[in-house]
Amino acid sequence: MAHFTTDENAQYFACGYSCDHAIFLELDGEAFFITDGRYTLEARTSIKNAEVIEAGDLWQAMVAKIPSSLKELYFDPAQLSVQTYGRLKNALPDLKFVGEVDYHRKQRIIKTPEQIALLKKAQELNVQAFDAFAQYLHSTHAPSEHFLQFKVKEFLTHRGEYPLSFEPIVAVNANAAKPHALPSKNPLSEGDLLLVDIGLKYERYCADRTRTAHFYKGFGFAKEQSFKDKELQKIYAVVLKAQEHAIAHLRAGMTGREIDSLARSVIEKAGFGAYFAHSTGHGIGLDIHELPFISQRSETIIEEGMVFSIEPGIYLPGKFGVRIEDLVVVQGSRAVVL
Amino acid sequence: MAHFTTDENAQYFACGYSCDHAIFLELDGEAFFITDGRYTLEARTSIKNAEVIEAGDLWQAMVAKIPSSLKELYFDPAQLSVQTYGRLKNALPDLKFVGEVDYHRKQRIIKTPEQIALLKKAQELNVQAFDAFAQYLHSTHAPSEHFLQFKVKEFLTHRGEYPLSFEPIVAVNANAAKPHALPSKNPLSEGDLLLVDIGLKYERYCADRTRTAHFYKGFGFAKEQSFKDKELQKIYAVVLKAQEHAIAHLRAGMTGREIDSLARSVIEKAGFGAYFAHSTGHGIGLDIHELPFISQRSETIIEEGMVFSIEPGIYLPGKFGVRIEDLVVVQGSRAVVL
Repeated sequence: MAHFTTDENAQYFACGYSCDHAIFLELDGEAFFITDGRYTLEARTSIKNAEVIEAGDLWQAMVAKIPSSLKELYFDPAQLSVQTYGRLKNALPDLKFVGEVDYHRKQRIIKTPEQIALLKKAQELNVQAFDAFAQYLHSTHAPSEHFLQFKVKEFLTHRGEYPLSFEPIVAVNANAAKPHALPSKNPLSEGDLLLVDIGLKYERYCADRTRTAHFYKGFGFAKEQSFKDKELQKIYAVVLKAQEHAIAHLRAGMTGREIDSLARSVIEKAGFGAYFAHSTGHGIGLDIHELPFISQRSETIIEEGMVFSIEPGIYLPGKFGVRIEDLVVVQGSRAVVL
Repeated sequence: MAHFTTDENAQYFACGYSCDHAIFLELDGEAFFITDGRYTLEARTSIKNAEVIEAGDLWQAMVAKIPSSLKELYFDPAQLSVQTYGRLKNALPDLKFVGEVDYHRKQRIIKTPEQIALLKKAQELNVQAFDAFAQYLHSTHAPSEHFLQFKVKEFLTHRGEYPLSFEPIVAVNANAAKPHALPSKNPLSEGDLLLVDIGLKYERYCADRTRTAHFYKGFGFAKEQSFKDKELQKIYAVVLKAQEHAIAHLRAGMTGREIDSLARSVIEKAGFGAYFAHSTGHGIGLDIHELPFISQRSETIIEEGMVFSIEPGIYLPGKFGVRIEDLVVVQGSRAVVL
């Protein structure tokens, strides 16, 4: 089917290159990468399976490439502006534009062994960043949450070598209960709860991992944690059980909703269902959030080669929040942690 | 006129708060900030002139607020997706949706004295970052361009205190000729050309400044530079003259195109017109690029209180690039450098 996209990750998936001012257009048997003079040199070096076209007005150049015989052209209506759509409809009044949400993401919902290897490598580098950050925290004195959210990037990027897959979250105590808290200037102190949710990109593939730890000199981001607060320790154990239960029992052939329920039921049975307000997981790949979604609304059938997060949490407003997240790939019908 | 927006800077301008999942809707005499439960607490604390509405489905909640008497609703068609527009048209078939590009940016093209003071403060902090970065470069040994692009953020953000207004550019020698070069692993060495284009945000207002310098131990980012390469020194002098000529001669009442020509004509007369492939400047405020544009296509009349960059450049492919950028505000009919 003929289709076009301006999304960088969809471009990269289609032709191995992308830039922030380009259209990838695929017609029957031919493909075009339309961009301006800043990028054509690099594009021609990198792209094998599409013709690179240099243009001042990208949309005009795309219109010129559409043959009058073309009947339908697919696009993702969540990624195209009303302004551009209006221009295209005017220029090509006889063409049927077919909007299909996640058109390009659907093509990459199942990962190849090569893509799984890149995601695994990204997550390995991410785990190294957790360890380096913990080492740093052993040797520093009472840094603010605010400063730590900055400083973690040094370890996460391996001193600038890898890009971030999202803005890191470093949250202490009550701030860990707010999904979008502004970092405070309060110092991190012995006995605090420290939630760290970070990810880097390796060759464009995203890592993502969360740990919640009891901070003291010598602490680590292992899954085994002992908090002095009894309520907190109980909640930590519930979240850990929910996460490990979902990973152990999910199977190919289940829906996203069924996998979400594996984690959610553990939390609900413990009486904390109202404090787990987000979904259990999300697909990951070139985008930090892609298909499949692991939520109560997801009827997607989970198949071999899909990669997603399992990240239940419990958040008590004003007190603390706990979340534990790993990435898994479905292999041999079961979840294998990356 | 009734209007709505999901753009964070447009929201902030309208009501002093924004988040990444919200709609600001203004009707005749009343305004609404529609968001989900993660943000309502903070929104209610921060917003004085709009009613905060908590909703699971933001668009459904917006539709419910539109009275049947409303005739027209304005929006920016460059910022609304085809998907959302389709939903709104279906839900409100009798309402006339009026798409006007830059609808919200037009409201902030002229800055108040308070906004100018924030932009000035942002740029002052930005200049401090240049000085701190130069100090660091005096004391370090042959860092790679790649590492410097990471390291500059430490100084630019004042160790995490301020956000970036865009991803910093630190480019050496031939890479300074590529507007979107990937940073290399080559070390910065005595005698190199160093182009630095960086900006931070102060209370959401953006700074932006570029300097091109001859690097040696003891160097600085002053406008006066002496390069050993004679062709480079000549080109540097042309760019500096173009930039200072435009700043000295621009007046309120000129169009963006006329101001662009002030800089461009100096470069063209020197025979380098073909190597100045971008526009002379852009407005700046909450967005790093906003109105007015200072380009050959801009018929915008420049008025008192507008703030924009003046940043001519000359780029010789494979050799080097030079760009010099300051921000100016129009006051007393002339440009005052921030």
